[in-house]
Amino acid sequence: MSIMKPVKPGQLFMGKLAHGCDLLEEITNICINENIKLARIEALGAVQKACIGYYDQNAREYQFIDLDQHLEITNLVGNISLKDGNPIAHAHITFADETGKAFGGHLASGTIVFACELLLEALEGPEFTRGLDEETGLPLWTMSE
Amino acid sequence: MSIMKPVKPGQLFMGKLAHGCDLLEEITNICINENIKLARIEALGAVQKACIGYYDQNAREYQFIDLDQHLEITNLVGNISLKDGNPIAHAHITFADETGKAFGGHLASGTIVFACELLLEALEGPEFTRGLDEETGLPLWTMSE
Amino acid sequence: MSIMKPVKPGQLFMGKLAHGCDLLEEITNICINENIKLARIEALGAVQKACIGYYDQNAREYQFIDLDQHLEITNLVGNISLKDGNPIAHAHITFADETGKAFGGHLASGTIVFACELLLEALEGPEFTRGLDEETGLPLWTMSE
Repeated sequence: MSIMKPVKPGQLFMGKLAHGCDLLEEITNICINENIKLARIEALGAVQKACIGYYDQNAREYQFIDLDQHLEITNLVGNISLKDGNPIAHAHITFADETGKAFGGHLASGTIVFACELLLEALEGPEFTRGLDEETGLPLWTMSE
Repeated sequence: MSIMKPVKPGQLFMGKLAHGCDLLEEITNICINENIKLARIEALGAVQKACIGYYDQNAREYQFIDLDQHLEITNLVGNISLKDGNPIAHAHITFADETGKAFGGHLASGTIVFACELLLEALEGPEFTRGLDEETGLPLWTMSE
Repeated sequence: MSIMKPVKPGQLFMGKLAHGCDLLEEITNICINENIKLARIEALGAVQKACIGYYDQNAREYQFIDLDQHLEITNLVGNISLKDGNPIAHAHITFADETGKAFGGHLASGTIVFACELLLEALEGPEFTRGLDEETGLPLWTMSE
């Protein structure tokens, strides 16, 4: 069953990420520092290299793909919620190479920022906590109706 | 002429869609249930298979492409407005396959959710109603200045 | 160092862009007309042709790619800030062709709208001004901690 929860807007943050930082880890660190437990995130920019995940729905595990090239980030979309009590960023990302060809997947550690503009919209609401979802094998939100 | 209307933020909803549901129909159903007539939507996740549209600008009709494979949703962006008095979701979607290669288009029925995290931001404002636009052949908003 | 600034929500605008307009220039003109100096933008739609940039991180210059074909806009994400005292739009865009194959990059002038639905969320906050960033060669925000 689909479950949608009412949430309220919280503090907004806009800015740029450090050249050379790990994109996923940096977003997580910002949320820890700002004590953000629930948020939406979006970004654009460029990376020095990327690591993306693809979830094998049959094997129920992520495969990771290293893209060892300079890429534009044409889009990053994601959210912040809690896992084991700590803020965790879940984001998907789309890239383009020097021919304009697009790639994408689940943002993984090892994606290194060249330049990145981030918008972080904190949200207020019930706790969104990730736990193992038996149906998919993924760490989905454990919310009930 | 471009026409932009001032709108105001309404109720925010964040949550997850049911494993196995039809992505486009489920978003529409949520809006009907919550009585939402205007909104922005965004999502990320994965699908069991996808159906996307490409609008042939010369023939003035959609061509539909079936992607019968497991794909990551790297981005979904769209809106809710009214058509024939009922909420209608218009969304475009980007996918990535197991090699990271990206695909996309106009979200059509037949796109089946594996897992999906949705943010729905209701908006308050003038009625946004879709009707035939003579210039493009598309069901665009019939607003005037 | 990553630098994130608190900002506040401002006026929201939702609407459609004129058939045949230049996507980047039209967004900029709307912001000039509405006196918007800081904002987030998102869009979906279709274009008659596109021009996208890829930043060569070694040569420190943009390469531009002309896509002389009808394409769906599967996503546009970006922001408005100031450069030399005037509003400037920075957006990245993802397209899909008639086979569903995706392309993308830095939105450049020469991208001509077939149909486009735009959401513009003005923001209030400190001035975000672009100036040359020595580390990357890009016109990044010149904010300090």
